[in-house]
Amino acid sequence: MGYKIAVVGATGLVGQEMLKILYERKIPVSEIYAFASAKSEGTYVEFGDEKIKVEKATVDGISKADFALFSIGEEISLELAPEIAKRGTIIIDNSNAFRMNPDVPLVIPEINPEDLKNHKNIIANPNCSTIQMLVALNPLHKKWRLKKIFVATYQSVSGKGKDAIDELLTATSSFLKKEDYSPKVFPYPIAFNLIPHIDSFEDENYTREEMKMVRETHKILHDPTIKVSPTCVRVPVLRGHSEVINAEFEEEFTLKEVFEVLSNAPGVKVLDDPSNRVYPMPLFCDGKDEVFVGRIRKDLFEPKALNMWVVSDNIRKGAALNAVQILEYMINNK
Amino acid sequence: MGYKIAVVGATGLVGQEMLKILYERKIPVSEIYAFASAKSEGTYVEFGDEKIKVEKATVDGISKADFALFSIGEEISLELAPEIAKRGTIIIDNSNAFRMNPDVPLVIPEINPEDLKNHKNIIANPNCSTIQMLVALNPLHKKWRLKKIFVATYQSVSGKGKDAIDELLTATSSFLKKEDYSPKVFPYPIAFNLIPHIDSFEDENYTREEMKMVRETHKILHDPTIKVSPTCVRVPVLRGHSEVINAEFEEEFTLKEVFEVLSNAPGVKVLDDPSNRVYPMPLFCDGKDEVFVGRIRKDLFEPKALNMWVVSDNIRKGAALNAVQILEYMINNK
Repeated sequence: MGYKIAVVGATGLVGQEMLKILYERKIPVSEIYAFASAKSEGTYVEFGDEKIKVEKATVDGISKADFALFSIGEEISLELAPEIAKRGTIIIDNSNAFRMNPDVPLVIPEINPEDLKNHKNIIANPNCSTIQMLVALNPLHKKWRLKKIFVATYQSVSGKGKDAIDELLTATSSFLKKEDYSPKVFPYPIAFNLIPHIDSFEDENYTREEMKMVRETHKILHDPTIKVSPTCVRVPVLRGHSEVINAEFEEEFTLKEVFEVLSNAPGVKVLDDPSNRVYPMPLFCDGKDEVFVGRIRKDLFEPKALNMWVVSDNIRKGAALNAVQILEYMINNK
Repeated sequence: MGYKIAVVGATGLVGQEMLKILYERKIPVSEIYAFASAKSEGTYVEFGDEKIKVEKATVDGISKADFALFSIGEEISLELAPEIAKRGTIIIDNSNAFRMNPDVPLVIPEINPEDLKNHKNIIANPNCSTIQMLVALNPLHKKWRLKKIFVATYQSVSGKGKDAIDELLTATSSFLKKEDYSPKVFPYPIAFNLIPHIDSFEDENYTREEMKMVRETHKILHDPTIKVSPTCVRVPVLRGHSEVINAEFEEEFTLKEVFEVLSNAPGVKVLDDPSNRVYPMPLFCDGKDEVFVGRIRKDLFEPKALNMWVVSDNIRKGAALNAVQILEYMINNK
């Protein structure tokens, strides 16, 4: 026995990783469907040793599934998901389309799986930068209550898909050969550069990426009073997002307690031994499931605050893995 | 008429930039001397159209100069500078050797040139990350008094010299060709990676680079009560350091006032027009004198705090230019 599962956006970076993780984690699958936009129709994707033919994403097609994991972009999610949900398929959507919808649970399984019980067939997967930040902070929040978060991100190009990875590689190669290269995916050259601009600009000159970190934190932790101050920056890294985080809590703690809590926290791996040069780095998180935490230090002036450095594979825990974990939780708690 | 000026560490990145800036800014030079470690003796460096023969750095040699700009590393500065200073040459030292010495002024000419009057022939140039942070923050501090600074750095490899630039280029090229490359300058591969470790680790698991930003801020602003919370990260960028800064002030301000103050601040250039994709980026600050400030926003929850993104050429304003500006100030205020 198993479930009919559809991956929608199956040819993208996240979609392919979803298929890989569904297989790796032995999710009980009776049928697997791969959907994508019209231009990928008829191509094949892998699921274990099988080749799956990609179908065009339609309401009728996707509604065959019990569960549909969407990672096909906000517009198509908005267009297709409501009708598919109405027909009884449970959708776990990786886009921004429904995240702030009060009828849609926004879930990190390590943090708020109980929110799943009120779903109306659409569940939202949070933004990659939010997921890794909160997986690292929530265990501390549960003990000492978060008051304020400053976060500066160092986001890899893979957050923008396969074309962005190609652009970084091609642009870098052109730079080394002193050839011209015109960026197409990013607004400026990303090779050997930093771009402090991810997603569109909203009010108050914050980007939508930054505002996602604020709003999603409030929704996931059920606490709109937590002060979040984010700045999001694109860096010339292929895969893995990194974050400098300063977190201030309501109550006092010792550094020893922080290490204890994080070492036992679900989904977290502490890599923190400076004298042996042990700290997380994006190059070494590729393909791994954990949120890696290092450079853990007390703030020098605020006794209730700490600094840390958090790295995770944005395509796995930041997207595909979190979605599959939601699915897993729902199957196990049916 | 002019001054006898020595550049000590003349073959390094900063030393060569010092020579370039001394020439560009038409510093009145009667004699120019180039000194370096023994291994560069007899090579040549450029000063305008002239070729200058490099001499081995010795007390006797350097003492011929009225002013000596040092950028030869902490150890040699500690060894040579005190005796040279005793013989009457005024030293402007770019290393960490004397920065926290109470007898040594630590000066950013836009901020605390008055500290120069108490010098005892040694003046220290601050750390690159500190300089660009304070050039951007001091004009605001003067109006609303800084209370707290949270800073995450994105530091280019050039801060570690020419070998580090070569290592990033070679490592990147090897990565693209899927060839192995063993890092020599950095503890880990820097190509397409981030390393949250600059300089050695001190107490409390802060790096020395991070502690410089704390201690130097207190010394330059004459205020040890300002809370500084730094995390320093090396990024795969060739030249130009970037910083995410959240600054909290004692008094209230409007965003309009912040733009006015920064637009009129010495050494600062505001690049901030998000709707037209205008913000600073390290790729475009190379060779420029200014500290570029953008992404200026009020903190979403703290009415007396703001976020900003600060970029500057670490070899120019972060090192060589600041040293030459100190020299210029001393010549003009003799």
